[in-house]
Amino acid sequence: MTDRIKALRAQIDEINLQLLDLLNRRATIASEIGKVQAELGSQFYDPQREAEMLTALQMANKGPFSNDTIKALFKEIFKASLALEEKEARQKIIVQRKTPDQQTVITFPDGTKVGDGSFQIIAGACAIESYEQMDAVGEVLASEGVKIMRGMAYKPRSSPYDFQGLGEEGLKIARQVANKYGMLVVTEIMDMSQIPMMSDYVDIFWVGARNMQNSFLLKALGKVKQPVILKRHFSATLKELLYSAEYIASGGNTQIIFIERGIRTFNEETRNTLDIGAVPLLKMESHLPVIVDISHSAGRRDLAIPFGRIAKASGADGLMVEVHPNPPVAMSDAKQQLYFDQFRALMRAIKDVPTPMELDAVKE
Amino acid sequence: MTDRIKALRAQIDEINLQLLDLLNRRATIASEIGKVQAELGSQFYDPQREAEMLTALQMANKGPFSNDTIKALFKEIFKASLALEEKEARQKIIVQRKTPDQQTVITFPDGTKVGDGSFQIIAGACAIESYEQMDAVGEVLASEGVKIMRGMAYKPRSSPYDFQGLGEEGLKIARQVANKYGMLVVTEIMDMSQIPMMSDYVDIFWVGARNMQNSFLLKALGKVKQPVILKRHFSATLKELLYSAEYIASGGNTQIIFIERGIRTFNEETRNTLDIGAVPLLKMESHLPVIVDISHSAGRRDLAIPFGRIAKASGADGLMVEVHPNPPVAMSDAKQQLYFDQFRALMRAIKDVPTPMELDAVKE
Amino acid sequence: MTDRIKALRAQIDEINLQLLDLLNRRATIASEIGKVQAELGSQFYDPQREAEMLTALQMANKGPFSNDTIKALFKEIFKASLALEEKEARQKIIVQRKTPDQQTVITFPDGTKVGDGSFQIIAGACAIESYEQMDAVGEVLASEGVKIMRGMAYKPRSSPYDFQGLGEEGLKIARQVANKYGMLVVTEIMDMSQIPMMSDYVDIFWVGARNMQNSFLLKALGKVKQPVILKRHFSATLKELLYSAEYIASGGNTQIIFIERGIRTFNEETRNTLDIGAVPLLKMESHLPVIVDISHSAGRRDLAIPFGRIAKASGADGLMVEVHPNPPVAMSDAKQQLYFDQFRALMRAIKDVPTPMELDAVKE
Amino acid sequence: MTDRIKALRAQIDEINLQLLDLLNRRATIASEIGKVQAELGSQFYDPQREAEMLTALQMANKGPFSNDTIKALFKEIFKASLALEEKEARQKIIVQRKTPDQQTVITFPDGTKVGDGSFQIIAGACAIESYEQMDAVGEVLASEGVKIMRGMAYKPRSSPYDFQGLGEEGLKIARQVANKYGMLVVTEIMDMSQIPMMSDYVDIFWVGARNMQNSFLLKALGKVKQPVILKRHFSATLKELLYSAEYIASGGNTQIIFIERGIRTFNEETRNTLDIGAVPLLKMESHLPVIVDISHSAGRRDLAIPFGRIAKASGADGLMVEVHPNPPVAMSDAKQQLYFDQFRALMRAIKDVPTPMELDAVKE
Repeated sequence: MTDRIKALRAQIDEINLQLLDLLNRRATIASEIGKVQAELGSQFYDPQREAEMLTALQMANKGPFSNDTIKALFKEIFKASLALEEKEARQKIIVQRKTPDQQTVITFPDGTKVGDGSFQIIAGACAIESYEQMDAVGEVLASEGVKIMRGMAYKPRSSPYDFQGLGEEGLKIARQVANKYGMLVVTEIMDMSQIPMMSDYVDIFWVGARNMQNSFLLKALGKVKQPVILKRHFSATLKELLYSAEYIASGGNTQIIFIERGIRTFNEETRNTLDIGAVPLLKMESHLPVIVDISHSAGRRDLAIPFGRIAKASGADGLMVEVHPNPPVAMSDAKQQLYFDQFRALMRAIKDVPTPMELDAVKE
Repeated sequence: MTDRIKALRAQIDEINLQLLDLLNRRATIASEIGKVQAELGSQFYDPQREAEMLTALQMANKGPFSNDTIKALFKEIFKASLALEEKEARQKIIVQRKTPDQQTVITFPDGTKVGDGSFQIIAGACAIESYEQMDAVGEVLASEGVKIMRGMAYKPRSSPYDFQGLGEEGLKIARQVANKYGMLVVTEIMDMSQIPMMSDYVDIFWVGARNMQNSFLLKALGKVKQPVILKRHFSATLKELLYSAEYIASGGNTQIIFIERGIRTFNEETRNTLDIGAVPLLKMESHLPVIVDISHSAGRRDLAIPFGRIAKASGADGLMVEVHPNPPVAMSDAKQQLYFDQFRALMRAIKDVPTPMELDAVKE
Repeated sequence: MTDRIKALRAQIDEINLQLLDLLNRRATIASEIGKVQAELGSQFYDPQREAEMLTALQMANKGPFSNDTIKALFKEIFKASLALEEKEARQKIIVQRKTPDQQTVITFPDGTKVGDGSFQIIAGACAIESYEQMDAVGEVLASEGVKIMRGMAYKPRSSPYDFQGLGEEGLKIARQVANKYGMLVVTEIMDMSQIPMMSDYVDIFWVGARNMQNSFLLKALGKVKQPVILKRHFSATLKELLYSAEYIASGGNTQIIFIERGIRTFNEETRNTLDIGAVPLLKMESHLPVIVDISHSAGRRDLAIPFGRIAKASGADGLMVEVHPNPPVAMSDAKQQLYFDQFRALMRAIKDVPTPMELDAVKE
Repeated sequence: MTDRIKALRAQIDEINLQLLDLLNRRATIASEIGKVQAELGSQFYDPQREAEMLTALQMANKGPFSNDTIKALFKEIFKASLALEEKEARQKIIVQRKTPDQQTVITFPDGTKVGDGSFQIIAGACAIESYEQMDAVGEVLASEGVKIMRGMAYKPRSSPYDFQGLGEEGLKIARQVANKYGMLVVTEIMDMSQIPMMSDYVDIFWVGARNMQNSFLLKALGKVKQPVILKRHFSATLKELLYSAEYIASGGNTQIIFIERGIRTFNEETRNTLDIGAVPLLKMESHLPVIVDISHSAGRRDLAIPFGRIAKASGADGLMVEVHPNPPVAMSDAKQQLYFDQFRALMRAIKDVPTPMELDAVKE
């Protein structure tokens, strides 16, 4: 390096420190403005004011930076100031992880826990079809130690002419079977008007992918006492999923479980593409439990065992799998529901995969 | 070609005709079974019966076709028979095009039409922010001959902390401005509980992408007297969109307009990727009008003119565009709303693109 | 607004101007360093130096901005300085548009032009199969005034067992037919070793999607005298496509035509999804001509007419379409090649769509 | 079920058996035609003949099946016959799994094996930058028992102005370091012209994503004696990947290793989306080993540990990870290369995840 460059770099270093000082002084004043605005109840972000400042800067700018560059740089400075002002507000994003060891653990009256480092199995038929079917499923689940039974009485279907579920009759069946085998019932809710009726039957509400951004339903579930399983839409970003959870949490109900279920891609071999990276990413961003739906992600039962092992190794808090006494004649999801023998094989196959007891992310 | 091959081919031809005869005799009998079942009210599709037939065929099969091939071929035969049985039922899929010249035309009390071969402009601010804003927008729209004004009072937002709209207060503003300038109001509905209140203010209901598969809302809109604009979810297939319309149509309301608004892909330059192919494809499949949202597909105003021209050339029945008196300070969609001058330029720029007056698909 | 806020804002305004001054002084010095480095032949970007500056700033930082914010802000400042240093270098990105009216026009010896505001049709069979086939195609093309004939002798196929093209024999056929009807030949090149042989037969080289990032081939085509058509890979971003063109241009050959051909998405009705937005976006970013492949984007011939109209309205410089005397028996792309009658109908159908003679983007 | 339905079903059963008989007789004759054609060297698939048969059937058809249905059913029958004719041919698809326990094991001169049930680590810097850098990396790898070192001397980059690698000089460095620490070298080849030169330095050829469908290169690698690692393009289907491997295998080199590296989706948090389902799916379809690239799939180092555990649980034969002495100043992939400490932590973190020793798919 030449002496010339050394000298110039020393000048840069000096300017850097002056910029640092100015930026922090600016931030202090902006922060004070923020406090006054908060008292007045006005919004921090004021595009008009920003536009005026940018115009003033462009009028004063003599280069060599172009007006566009100056505009871009000051927009970054505005954003940083705004971020500082909103820092306290941001702390209110309830579902966001605040500390590395923060972890929501959901505990049910029978002692079943989700999020405590154990690996919970949620299983059951895609749809409740009859008492006999549910009883057969319940018996197998109970024999394998499953504590949370899936029993859907309302099915969101693409076509209005497809089987839409047994309705309240189905919920009665699910409750009866769950009671017989000592299990909890999770069922899908499709509209906020169903809450009062469903509350009599279910232990956990399930929000399906199609309702992931139904803000009226989400807000209403912020007021119920049961935990909520929130399924990622097959094309939702993780940020969108986190904000959907925030709709529930901001209403007061923080007992929320995420479920990753595959995303829509160009892949043809599977119904969706299991986005397993979502598990560690959600864990980094949020303190809520995450489970993996190995049925809808694959859409085929021959992937249940590898997907079950993958889910457990990923650090998820559990998995969800569909089981049916006679899958080919099931009224929905015939290709992906497991035979009883396959379900037992799955339970054996995941046994030796260890559960990571702590966040695996390596910090730099 | 050798004589040997010729002789063998003659044998094949003979067998083909025998197969044809058997297939049709089989279809006749299956059709008769269908009629009996229809009287009994039982479903046409009986997986148990299919399983039994396949087992019998596999037991009888001596090759050279493998059991798998025989199974696959007979599944096709079963499907064809089933299709025949359901043919009459299929005719009931209301939104499906039945004939090449079938076309739903929606006529409003003021004579405005959608689907009649004209190219309708639906325009307005992303969200209703104030009377002044809406009045300014309304004046420009009216001066350009726009008949349908967009005015959203409830905004579905990813975050619960973002601006959610002015609510009923906003609807009052929209109604007032529309009346002043002689325009129709289209507004987004987010939950079926809003129908009674909204019906007093709006001429057209808008179902947003996030609610495209909210079957409770869709069914409820099947009972209203206003037309419904149904927006494609950014990752919905066209089949899913058609079935969502069927949820509305099967309730009795067939005044439905599709809106294509871009799909979520890997592209980074635009908010979504305009799937312009959806326009001719929806036209081929359905008799309902289709319009193109050139604001949300692009997510940037500098694409408004090319997208407007593309939309008109595609055979769409109109376009939707967002306009704001001062886009950079808009409370939502600041990057994509047009300045008034841009909107006027858009109207000029699409004028010379001809509207195809008939379905352009070339039939073979 | 309170007086308190007014006073604080005045302080902010003052600091803004000081920041502006410092940023520009910093830029001047950085620019001088850049000049010294350019003389020494060393790279502008020096991560080590950046790391040191950031460390110094973090040591000196006393808040209220966090170290992370300071780091982020200074990274923006570094980037802006770097951008300034590289501004001259950036001017060397050959395919990047420099001025609004810059436009590469490719002129062939016979006077045919691409990029001059006309709408060129490139048509022909997917693959050269025989002299008879090509002659029949050539006759139809000529009768419709087509000047550029597609004739592929080497076919990139997914399977090694699929028809791979006639090779040099096919090129001879293409040349012969083109000469007979007074047309230019464009053909696909798959490996740089083919350049010398092919140069005897072809007027335009075609780089297929699978080779869009084959840098050895691209560099080699930078040295040929024929124009090059560069096809976008079905999952390439526009930035990647521009850089691929730069590989050719940086070798000296700036006669490049982009071809948009649909991207891979979740859509099932079409082979790919026509990304028509790519046309105006490429036009904004680059001065090179852009044409639209209406055959591979749709993958079905019944969309040819709407896609042709859309392509013309989008501002593209032309379209590419496959034509075959008997499409169902074609050795490749049987579903998308047009019958002769369909091709003639397409030519009629696009006639009344006007060509935009200037960039349609509306500048704010 | 009524007696009427019983009687009709008996008739169906009878017709089913007659159809079965006819279909098999037809298949026998078609198979004989196939043998004659094979002797004559003509293709099995004859679209002209199919068209004639379909026309004859449509002329003879009296319903109730429509001509379209008859056409569709016979197309299935034709396809089945064709499949039978090609069965023997199909057995020649080399990379396709033939039996459940078929497994290609690649054994290197030093005894290192890939595909034998062990979990191989392939690690090293993204690009060779200097002897010092590679020596530092090599020392760490060797201390952790790594046997295969990644050392890229030619880098495929989006921009022609980015660092393109050290070239042959880099290969010399890689060879020297590998010899010092007793490791094998894998390096990326970008054009078939490089084979002779590279063969002197490398133990394994690496085909990058951008060259996955470069058939000239693939065919040329079918003739080398070194194994080939074939990287999936970020938007290739598994079928396309299998066929690309077949290009190599059909040339004689069956020592091929697949590498899954993430696909391009709408996800923003990661560079690509790890498609972990590709591992069990490739294992079901092919007997070739599969490894997982945990660097390019994530594009960020904080996911290395969860991705490493996921990869091992998925049944993959190993993983590939990038390691650098000082990642932030790396000349490429600065965000995803691991620090040495992180690499050691990764090695510890995957130790307790068991390797499935057999194909986990549960057969029904």
